[in-house]
Amino acid sequence: MENVKIIEIKKSVFENNDRAADELRGELKTKGVFLLNLMSSPGSGKTTTLIQTINRLKDKIRIAVMEADIDSDVDAIKIKEATGVESIQLHTGGMCHLDAEMTKQGLEGLNNVQRDNVQGTKGRPDLVILENVGNLVCPAEFDTGAVKNAMILSVPEGHDKPLKYPLMFSICDVVVINKIDVLPYFDFDMEKCKEYIHMRNPKATVIPICAKTGEGVDIFAEWLLTEVKNWKSI
Amino acid sequence: MENVKIIEIKKSVFENNDRAADELRGELKTKGVFLLNLMSSPGSGKTTTLIQTINRLKDKIRIAVMEADIDSDVDAIKIKEATGVESIQLHTGGMCHLDAEMTKQGLEGLNNVQRDNVQGTKGRPDLVILENVGNLVCPAEFDTGAVKNAMILSVPEGHDKPLKYPLMFSICDVVVINKIDVLPYFDFDMEKCKEYIHMRNPKATVIPICAKTGEGVDIFAEWLLTEVKNWKSI
Repeated sequence: MENVKIIEIKKSVFENNDRAADELRGELKTKGVFLLNLMSSPGSGKTTTLIQTINRLKDKIRIAVMEADIDSDVDAIKIKEATGVESIQLHTGGMCHLDAEMTKQGLEGLNNVQRDNVQGTKGRPDLVILENVGNLVCPAEFDTGAVKNAMILSVPEGHDKPLKYPLMFSICDVVVINKIDVLPYFDFDMEKCKEYIHMRNPKATVIPICAKTGEGVDIFAEWLLTEVKNWKSI
Repeated sequence: MENVKIIEIKKSVFENNDRAADELRGELKTKGVFLLNLMSSPGSGKTTTLIQTINRLKDKIRIAVMEADIDSDVDAIKIKEATGVESIQLHTGGMCHLDAEMTKQGLEGLNNVQRDNVQGTKGRPDLVILENVGNLVCPAEFDTGAVKNAMILSVPEGHDKPLKYPLMFSICDVVVINKIDVLPYFDFDMEKCKEYIHMRNPKATVIPICAKTGEGVDIFAEWLLTEVKNWKSI
Protein backbone atom coordinates (compact mmCIF):
# COMPACT_ATOMS: atom_id res chain seq x y z
CA MET A 1 0.00 0.00 0.00
CA GLU A 2 1.23 3.50 -0.84
CA ASN A 3 2.13 6.01 1.81
CA VAL A 4 0.71 9.48 1.68
CA LYS A 5 1.70 12.64 3.45
CA ILE A 6 -0.56 13.51 6.36
CA ILE A 7 -1.00 17.10 7.53
CA GLU A 8 -2.44 17.73 10.98
CA ILE A 9 -4.59 20.82 10.50
CA LYS A 10 -4.57 23.35 13.33
CA LYS A 11 -7.64 25.32 14.28
CA SER A 12 -7.35 28.68 12.64
CA VAL A 13 -7.02 31.87 14.59
CA PHE A 14 -8.16 34.32 11.94
CA GLU A 15 -11.40 35.98 12.79
CA ASN A 16 -12.23 37.22 9.37
CA ASN A 17 -12.54 34.08 7.27
CA ASP A 18 -14.08 35.86 4.29
CA ARG A 19 -11.07 38.14 3.99
CA ALA A 20 -8.64 35.23 4.39
CA ALA A 21 -10.55 33.36 1.67
CA ASP A 22 -10.39 36.31 -0.72
CA GLU A 23 -6.67 36.68 -0.07
CA LEU A 24 -6.10 33.00 -0.76
CA ARG A 25 -8.08 33.21 -4.02
CA GLY A 26 -5.96 36.19 -5.02
CA GLU A 27 -2.77 34.25 -4.38
CA LEU A 28 -4.05 31.25 -6.34
CA LYS A 29 -4.97 33.54 -9.22
CA THR A 30 -1.46 34.98 -9.32
CA LYS A 31 0.02 31.49 -9.35
CA GLY A 32 -2.46 30.14 -11.89
CA VAL A 33 -3.76 27.44 -9.57
CA PHE A 34 -7.49 26.54 -9.65
CA LEU A 35 -8.87 25.24 -6.35
CA LEU A 36 -12.11 23.22 -6.35
CA ASN A 37 -13.89 22.64 -3.03
CA LEU A 38 -15.84 19.37 -3.23
CA MET A 39 -18.48 18.71 -0.57
CA SER A 40 -21.14 16.08 0.17
CA SER A 41 -22.73 13.86 2.80
CA PRO A 42 -20.75 10.86 4.03
CA GLY A 43 -20.92 8.01 1.53
CA SER A 44 -22.17 9.93 -1.50
CA GLY A 45 -19.20 8.86 -3.60
CA LYS A 46 -16.78 11.82 -3.53
CA THR A 47 -13.63 9.70 -3.77
CA THR A 48 -14.89 7.45 -6.59
CA THR A 49 -16.09 10.49 -8.52
CA LEU A 50 -12.69 12.12 -8.09
CA ILE A 51 -10.83 9.05 -9.33
CA GLN A 52 -12.99 8.87 -12.47
CA THR A 53 -12.67 12.60 -13.10
CA ILE A 54 -8.91 12.77 -12.51
CA ASN A 55 -8.27 9.84 -14.85
CA ARG A 56 -10.05 11.77 -17.61
CA LEU A 57 -8.06 14.97 -17.02
CA LYS A 58 -4.60 14.04 -15.78
CA ASP A 59 -3.01 13.94 -19.23
CA LYS A 60 -4.33 17.42 -20.03
CA ILE A 61 -3.59 19.33 -16.81
CA ARG A 62 -1.50 18.84 -13.66
CA ILE A 63 -3.71 17.81 -10.73
CA ALA A 64 -3.20 17.44 -6.98
CA VAL A 65 -5.68 16.36 -4.30
CA MET A 66 -6.15 17.24 -0.63
CA GLU A 67 -8.37 14.79 1.25
CA ALA A 68 -9.84 16.18 4.45
CA ASP A 69 -10.89 13.57 6.95
CA ILE A 70 -11.30 13.39 10.68
CA ASP A 71 -8.59 10.86 11.19
CA SER A 72 -8.25 8.17 8.55
CA ASP A 73 -6.05 8.30 5.45
CA VAL A 74 -7.80 5.70 3.29
CA ASP A 75 -9.09 8.24 0.74
CA ALA A 76 -5.74 9.88 0.01
CA ILE A 77 -4.14 6.47 -0.49
CA LYS A 78 -7.01 5.34 -2.73
CA ILE A 79 -6.68 8.44 -4.94
CA LYS A 80 -2.91 8.09 -5.22
CA GLU A 81 -3.09 4.39 -6.08
CA ALA A 82 -5.90 4.79 -8.61
CA THR A 83 -4.69 7.92 -10.42
CA GLY A 84 -1.02 8.46 -9.61
CA VAL A 85 -1.55 12.18 -8.92
CA GLU A 86 -0.13 13.84 -5.84
CA SER A 87 -2.54 13.30 -2.97
CA ILE A 88 -2.24 14.31 0.66
CA GLN A 89 -4.46 13.74 3.67
CA LEU A 90 -5.54 16.62 5.89
CA HIS A 91 -6.49 15.55 9.39
CA THR A 92 -9.01 17.91 10.93
CA GLY A 93 -8.79 16.35 14.39
CA GLY A 94 -12.55 16.13 14.79
CA MET A 95 -13.32 19.48 13.18
CA CYS A 96 -16.35 19.40 10.93
CA HIS A 97 -15.20 21.74 8.18
CA LEU A 98 -12.22 23.54 6.68
CA ASP A 99 -11.93 27.31 6.50
CA ALA A 100 -9.57 29.36 4.33
CA GLU A 101 -6.67 29.32 6.77
CA MET A 102 -6.95 25.56 7.24
CA THR A 103 -7.10 25.11 3.46
CA LYS A 104 -3.96 27.22 3.18
CA GLN A 105 -2.18 24.92 5.64
CA GLY A 106 -3.10 22.06 3.32
CA LEU A 107 -1.83 23.88 0.23
CA GLU A 108 1.43 24.58 2.01
CA GLY A 109 1.71 20.87 2.64
CA LEU A 110 1.29 20.12 -1.06
CA ASN A 111 4.50 20.33 -2.99
CA ASN A 112 4.84 23.08 -5.57
CA VAL A 113 1.74 25.07 -4.79
CA GLN A 114 2.72 27.72 -2.34
CA ARG A 115 6.38 27.93 -3.20
CA ASP A 116 8.49 27.55 -6.29
CA ASN A 117 10.37 24.29 -6.29
CA VAL A 118 13.37 23.29 -8.34
CA GLN A 119 11.20 23.03 -11.43
CA GLY A 120 9.89 26.56 -10.91
CA THR A 121 6.31 27.21 -11.94
CA LYS A 122 6.34 24.09 -14.07
CA GLY A 123 5.89 21.92 -11.01
CA ARG A 124 2.73 23.66 -9.89
CA PRO A 125 -0.59 21.93 -10.37
CA ASP A 126 -3.16 23.63 -12.58
CA LEU A 127 -5.93 22.15 -10.46
CA VAL A 128 -6.06 21.32 -6.76
CA ILE A 129 -9.15 19.48 -5.56
CA LEU A 130 -10.07 19.72 -1.89
CA GLU A 131 -12.31 16.88 -0.74
CA ASN A 132 -13.97 18.53 2.26
CA VAL A 133 -15.28 16.70 5.38
CA GLY A 134 -18.45 14.65 4.65
CA ASN A 135 -21.09 17.00 6.03
CA LEU A 136 -23.85 19.08 4.39
CA VAL A 137 -24.03 21.70 7.12
CA CYS A 138 -20.78 23.19 8.42
CA PRO A 139 -18.57 23.17 5.30
CA ALA A 140 -21.19 25.37 3.59
CA GLU A 141 -20.64 28.10 6.17
CA PHE A 142 -16.93 28.59 5.56
CA ASP A 143 -15.41 29.95 2.38
CA THR A 144 -12.28 27.85 1.82
CA GLY A 145 -10.80 30.24 -0.71
CA ALA A 146 -11.75 27.88 -3.54
CA VAL A 147 -12.47 29.27 -6.99
CA LYS A 148 -15.58 27.10 -7.34
CA ASN A 149 -17.69 24.98 -5.00
CA ALA A 150 -19.02 21.60 -6.09
CA MET A 151 -21.19 19.14 -4.23
CA ILE A 152 -22.30 15.58 -4.78
CA LEU A 153 -25.81 14.47 -3.89
CA SER A 154 -26.39 10.73 -4.30
CA VAL A 155 -29.70 9.23 -5.37
CA PRO A 156 -30.25 7.20 -2.15
CA GLU A 157 -30.17 10.43 -0.10
CA GLY A 158 -33.41 11.61 -1.71
CA HIS A 159 -34.45 14.49 -3.96
CA ASP A 160 -35.64 16.63 -1.03
CA LYS A 161 -32.18 17.49 0.28
CA PRO A 162 -32.08 21.02 -1.23
CA LEU A 163 -35.12 21.79 0.97
CA LYS A 164 -33.31 20.65 4.10
CA TYR A 165 -29.78 21.93 3.51
CA PRO A 166 -30.47 25.26 1.79
CA LEU A 167 -27.11 26.94 2.34
CA MET A 168 -25.09 24.07 0.86
CA PHE A 169 -27.09 24.12 -2.36
CA SER A 170 -27.10 27.91 -2.59
CA ILE A 171 -23.28 28.21 -2.51
CA CYS A 172 -22.50 25.43 -5.01
CA ASP A 173 -21.68 26.25 -8.61
CA VAL A 174 -22.22 22.66 -9.68
CA VAL A 175 -24.30 19.85 -8.16
CA VAL A 176 -23.31 16.35 -9.28
CA ILE A 177 -26.09 13.80 -8.78
CA ASN A 178 -24.33 10.47 -8.28
CA LYS A 179 -25.45 6.80 -8.24
CA ILE A 180 -28.00 7.20 -11.04
CA ASP A 181 -27.55 3.46 -11.70
CA VAL A 182 -29.77 2.76 -8.67
CA LEU A 183 -32.58 5.14 -9.70
CA PRO A 184 -34.96 2.19 -10.30
CA TYR A 185 -34.70 1.14 -6.64
CA PHE A 186 -35.32 4.52 -4.98
CA ASP A 187 -38.15 7.05 -4.97
CA PHE A 188 -35.95 9.76 -6.42
CA ASP A 189 -37.56 12.33 -8.70
CA MET A 190 -34.79 13.86 -10.84
CA GLU A 191 -36.96 16.70 -12.17
CA LYS A 192 -38.13 17.67 -8.68
CA CYS A 193 -34.53 17.53 -7.47
CA LYS A 194 -33.41 19.93 -10.22
CA GLU A 195 -36.34 22.21 -9.43
CA TYR A 196 -35.42 22.30 -5.71
CA ILE A 197 -31.73 22.92 -6.51
CA HIS A 198 -32.66 25.83 -8.78
CA MET A 199 -34.96 27.24 -6.10
CA ARG A 200 -31.83 27.58 -3.95
CA ASN A 201 -29.49 28.57 -6.74
CA PRO A 202 -30.88 29.32 -10.21
CA LYS A 203 -27.37 29.36 -11.71
CA ALA A 204 -26.25 25.95 -10.44
CA THR A 205 -25.17 23.44 -13.08
CA VAL A 206 -26.67 19.99 -12.40
CA ILE A 207 -24.84 16.93 -13.75
CA PRO A 208 -26.25 13.41 -13.19
CA ILE A 209 -23.54 10.74 -13.14
CA CYS A 210 -22.70 7.22 -12.04
CA ALA A 211 -19.15 7.26 -10.69
CA LYS A 212 -19.10 3.45 -10.52
CA THR A 213 -19.75 2.93 -14.25
CA GLY A 214 -18.41 6.29 -15.43
CA GLU A 215 -21.70 7.41 -16.97
CA GLY A 216 -21.90 11.21 -17.15
CA VAL A 217 -18.41 11.75 -15.73
CA ASP A 218 -17.18 13.11 -19.10
CA ILE A 219 -19.60 16.01 -18.69
CA PHE A 220 -18.35 16.86 -15.21
CA ALA A 221 -14.73 16.55 -16.34
CA GLU A 222 -15.46 18.88 -19.27
CA TRP A 223 -17.12 21.43 -16.96
CA LEU A 224 -14.08 21.35 -14.68
CA LEU A 225 -11.54 21.62 -17.50
CA THR A 226 -13.34 24.66 -18.92
CA GLU A 227 -13.35 26.33 -15.50
CA VAL A 228 -9.64 25.66 -14.98
CA LYS A 229 -8.80 27.08 -18.42
CA ASN A 230 -10.91 30.19 -17.81
CA TRP A 231 -9.21 30.79 -14.46
CA LYS A 232 -5.71 30.45 -15.89
CA SER A 233 -6.22 32.51 -19.02
CA ILE A 234 -8.21 35.49 -17.72
CA MET B 1 -51.59 19.36 5.49
CA GLU B 2 -51.26 19.40 9.27
CA ASN B 3 -49.66 22.23 11.12
CA VAL B 4 -46.94 21.59 13.62
CA LYS B 5 -45.45 23.76 16.30
CA ILE B 6 -42.09 25.23 15.37
CA ILE B 7 -39.56 26.20 18.02
CA GLU B 8 -36.74 28.54 17.04
CA ILE B 9 -33.78 27.22 19.02
CA LYS B 10 -31.42 29.82 20.44
CA LYS B 11 -27.69 29.26 20.66
CA SER B 12 -26.96 28.09 24.16
CA VAL B 13 -24.86 30.13 26.56
CA PHE B 14 -23.87 27.36 28.94
CA GLU B 15 -20.20 26.59 28.83
CA ASN B 16 -20.36 23.26 30.54
CA ASN B 17 -22.49 21.13 28.25
CA ASP B 18 -21.64 17.86 29.99
CA ARG B 19 -22.99 19.17 33.28
CA ALA B 20 -26.13 20.56 31.62
CA ALA B 21 -26.66 17.16 29.95
CA ASP B 22 -26.33 15.28 33.23
CA GLU B 23 -28.77 17.68 34.89
CA LEU B 24 -31.28 17.20 32.10
CA ARG B 25 -30.97 13.40 32.35
CA GLY B 26 -31.58 13.69 36.10
CA GLU B 27 -34.73 15.71 35.50
CA LEU B 28 -35.98 13.24 32.89
CA LYS B 29 -35.32 10.37 35.31
CA THR B 30 -37.40 12.07 38.00
CA LYS B 31 -40.24 12.61 35.56
CA GLY B 32 -40.02 9.11 34.06
CA VAL B 33 -39.37 10.40 30.55
CA PHE B 34 -36.96 8.47 28.28
CA LEU B 35 -35.15 10.62 25.70
CA LEU B 36 -33.63 8.96 22.62
CA ASN B 37 -31.17 10.95 20.50
CA LEU B 38 -31.34 9.69 16.91
CA MET B 39 -28.53 10.70 14.56
CA SER B 40 -27.45 9.94 10.99
CA SER B 41 -26.23 11.38 7.69
CA PRO B 42 -28.70 13.29 5.55
CA GLY B 43 -30.99 10.91 3.69
CA SER B 44 -30.32 7.73 5.64
CA GLY B 45 -34.00 7.26 6.47
CA LYS B 46 -34.40 8.64 10.01
CA THR B 47 -37.96 9.86 9.51
CA THR B 48 -39.23 6.69 7.79
CA THR B 49 -37.60 4.54 10.49
CA LEU B 50 -39.27 6.66 13.17
CA ILE B 51 -42.71 6.34 11.58
CA GLN B 52 -42.41 2.55 11.38
CA THR B 53 -41.11 2.31 14.94
CA ILE B 54 -43.69 4.65 16.46
CA ASN B 55 -46.56 2.82 14.79
CA ARG B 56 -45.37 -0.39 16.50
CA LEU B 57 -45.12 1.24 19.95
CA LYS B 58 -47.74 3.97 20.19
CA ASP B 59 -50.44 1.73 21.68
CA LYS B 60 -48.05 0.55 24.40
CA ILE B 61 -46.39 3.80 25.50
CA ARG B 62 -46.96 7.56 25.05
CA ILE B 63 -44.54 8.98 22.48
CA ALA B 64 -43.59 12.48 21.35
CA VAL B 65 -41.10 13.56 18.68
CA MET B 66 -38.81 16.58 18.26
CA GLU B 67 -37.51 17.03 14.72
CA ALA B 68 -34.40 19.17 14.46
CA ASP B 69 -33.83 20.73 11.09
CA ILE B 70 -32.09 23.77 9.78
CA ASP B 71 -35.23 25.43 8.53
CA SER B 72 -37.88 23.16 7.02
CA ASP B 73 -40.77 21.54 8.87
CA VAL B 74 -41.54 18.69 6.48
CA ASP B 75 -40.34 15.96 8.85
CA ALA B 76 -42.45 17.00 11.85
CA ILE B 77 -45.54 17.20 9.63
CA LYS B 78 -44.77 13.80 8.09
CA ILE B 79 -44.42 12.17 11.53
CA LYS B 80 -47.64 13.73 12.83
CA GLU B 81 -49.64 12.73 9.75
CA ALA B 82 -48.29 9.18 9.64
CA THR B 83 -48.44 8.32 13.34
CA GLY B 84 -50.72 10.83 15.09
CA VAL B 85 -48.23 11.35 17.93
CA GLU B 86 -47.26 14.81 19.13
CA SER B 87 -44.49 16.12 16.91
CA ILE B 88 -42.74 19.48 16.94
CA GLN B 89 -40.08 21.00 14.76
CA LEU B 90 -36.92 22.54 16.19
CA HIS B 91 -35.30 25.10 13.95
CA THR B 92 -31.59 25.31 14.60
CA GLY B 93 -31.09 28.39 12.42
CA GLY B 94 -28.12 26.91 10.58
CA MET B 95 -26.54 25.27 13.63
CA CYS B 96 -25.17 21.83 12.91
CA HIS B 97 -26.05 20.06 16.16
CA LEU B 98 -28.10 20.29 19.35
CA ASP B 99 -26.57 20.45 22.81
CA ALA B 100 -28.27 19.79 26.13
CA GLU B 101 -29.55 23.33 26.62
CA MET B 102 -30.97 23.44 23.10
CA THR B 103 -32.62 20.05 23.66
CA LYS B 104 -34.13 21.41 26.86
CA GLN B 105 -35.62 24.33 24.90
CA GLY B 106 -37.25 21.74 22.66
CA LEU B 107 -38.60 19.73 25.58
CA GLU B 108 -40.07 22.91 27.04
CA GLY B 109 -41.84 23.43 23.75
CA LEU B 110 -43.36 19.96 23.91
CA ASN B 111 -46.52 19.84 25.94
CA ASN B 112 -46.46 17.94 29.20
CA VAL B 113 -42.79 17.16 29.46
CA GLN B 114 -41.22 19.90 31.49
CA ARG B 115 -44.28 20.98 33.42
CA ASP B 116 -47.36 19.33 34.80
CA ASN B 117 -50.38 20.11 32.72
CA VAL B 118 -54.03 19.75 33.63
CA GLN B 119 -53.76 16.01 33.35
CA GLY B 120 -50.80 15.95 35.73
CA THR B 121 -48.19 13.29 35.10
CA LYS B 122 -50.61 11.30 32.96
CA GLY B 123 -50.08 13.66 30.05
CA ARG B 124 -46.35 13.13 29.98
CA PRO B 125 -44.82 11.02 27.25
CA ASP B 126 -42.90 7.90 28.27
CA LEU B 127 -40.62 8.33 25.29
CA VAL B 128 -39.40 11.45 23.52
CA ILE B 129 -37.42 10.92 20.35
CA LEU B 130 -35.09 13.67 19.19
CA GLU B 131 -34.27 13.48 15.49
CA ASN B 132 -30.97 15.35 15.46
CA VAL B 133 -29.57 17.36 12.50
CA GLY B 134 -28.41 15.10 9.63
CA ASN B 135 -24.67 15.12 10.24
CA LEU B 136 -22.18 12.45 11.37
CA VAL B 137 -19.67 14.88 12.84
CA CYS B 138 -20.92 17.64 15.12
CA PRO B 139 -23.92 15.98 16.83
CA ALA B 140 -21.54 13.30 18.15
CA GLU B 141 -19.57 15.95 20.05
CA PHE B 142 -22.44 17.27 22.15
CA ASP B 143 -24.25 15.25 24.81
CA THR B 144 -27.93 16.20 24.40
CA GLY B 145 -28.96 14.82 27.79
CA ALA B 146 -30.52 11.79 26.09
CA VAL B 147 -30.68 8.47 27.94
CA LYS B 148 -29.46 6.57 24.88
CA ASN B 149 -27.90 7.49 21.54
CA ALA B 150 -28.94 5.75 18.35
CA MET B 151 -27.71 6.20 14.81
CA ILE B 152 -28.80 5.02 11.40
CA LEU B 153 -26.26 4.05 8.77
CA SER B 154 -27.79 3.26 5.40
CA VAL B 155 -26.40 0.65 3.02
CA PRO B 156 -25.65 3.13 0.15
CA GLU B 157 -23.31 5.09 2.46
CA GLY B 158 -20.90 2.16 2.62
CA HIS B 159 -19.59 -0.18 5.32
CA ASP B 160 -16.44 1.87 5.90
CA LYS B 161 -18.17 4.74 7.71
CA PRO B 162 -17.13 3.63 11.24
CA LEU B 163 -13.53 4.10 10.09
CA LYS B 164 -14.20 7.66 8.98
CA TYR B 165 -16.56 8.93 11.69
CA PRO B 166 -15.11 7.22 14.77
CA LEU B 167 -16.68 9.41 17.46
CA MET B 168 -20.23 8.98 16.18
CA PHE B 169 -19.96 5.20 16.27
CA SER B 170 -18.23 5.15 19.63
CA ILE B 171 -20.99 7.08 21.42
CA CYS B 172 -23.97 5.16 19.98
CA ASP B 173 -25.68 2.44 22.00
CA VAL B 174 -27.42 1.10 18.94
CA VAL B 175 -26.57 1.29 15.23
CA VAL B 176 -29.47 0.63 12.87
CA ILE B 177 -28.36 -0.38 9.38
CA ASN B 178 -31.13 0.77 7.05
CA LYS B 179 -32.02 0.11 3.40
CA ILE B 180 -31.01 -3.57 3.45
CA ASP B 181 -33.42 -4.08 0.54
CA VAL B 182 -30.81 -2.53 -1.77
CA LEU B 183 -27.91 -4.70 -0.55
CA PRO B 184 -27.74 -6.50 -3.93
CA TYR B 185 -26.98 -3.22 -5.72
CA PHE B 186 -24.19 -1.94 -3.49
CA ASP B 187 -20.75 -3.20 -2.43
CA PHE B 188 -21.72 -3.27 1.23
CA ASP B 189 -20.14 -5.94 3.44
CA MET B 190 -22.42 -6.41 6.48
CA GLU B 191 -19.91 -8.49 8.43
CA LYS B 192 -17.12 -5.96 7.85
CA CYS B 193 -19.48 -3.18 8.88
CA LYS B 194 -20.30 -4.93 12.17
CA GLU B 195 -16.61 -5.56 12.75
CA TYR B 196 -15.76 -1.86 12.21
CA ILE B 197 -18.64 -0.73 14.46
CA HIS B 198 -17.44 -3.03 17.23
CA MET B 199 -13.88 -1.74 16.81
CA ARG B 200 -15.28 1.67 17.79
CA ASN B 201 -17.73 0.41 20.38
CA PRO B 202 -17.70 -3.27 21.39
CA LYS B 203 -21.01 -2.90 23.25
CA ALA B 204 -23.02 -1.38 20.39
CA THR B 205 -26.15 -3.27 19.34
CA VAL B 206 -26.39 -3.56 15.53
CA ILE B 207 -29.83 -3.98 13.96
CA PRO B 208 -30.20 -4.34 10.16
CA ILE B 209 -33.59 -3.08 8.91
CA CYS B 210 -35.50 -1.88 5.88
CA ALA B 211 -37.68 1.03 6.99
CA LYS B 212 -39.49 1.04 3.65
CA THR B 213 -40.76 -2.54 3.93
CA GLY B 214 -40.65 -2.77 7.74
CA GLU B 215 -38.18 -5.68 7.79
CA GLY B 216 -36.27 -5.78 11.08
CA VAL B 217 -38.13 -2.81 12.60
CA ASP B 218 -39.79 -5.09 15.19
CA ILE B 219 -36.35 -5.79 16.64
CA PHE B 220 -35.47 -2.11 16.93
CA ALA B 221 -38.90 -1.33 18.45
CA GLU B 222 -38.41 -4.14 20.97
CA TRP B 223 -34.95 -2.83 21.91
CA LEU B 224 -36.39 0.65 22.44
CA LEU B 225 -39.39 -0.57 24.47
CA THR B 226 -37.11 -2.55 26.78
CA GLU B 227 -34.88 0.50 27.31
CA VAL B 228 -37.88 2.73 28.09
CA LYS B 229 -39.25 0.21 30.59
CA ASN B 230 -35.85 -0.15 32.28
CA TRP B 231 -35.51 3.62 32.60
CA LYS B 232 -38.96 4.08 34.10
CA SER B 233 -38.84 1.18 36.54
CA ILE B 234 -35.33 1.43 37.93
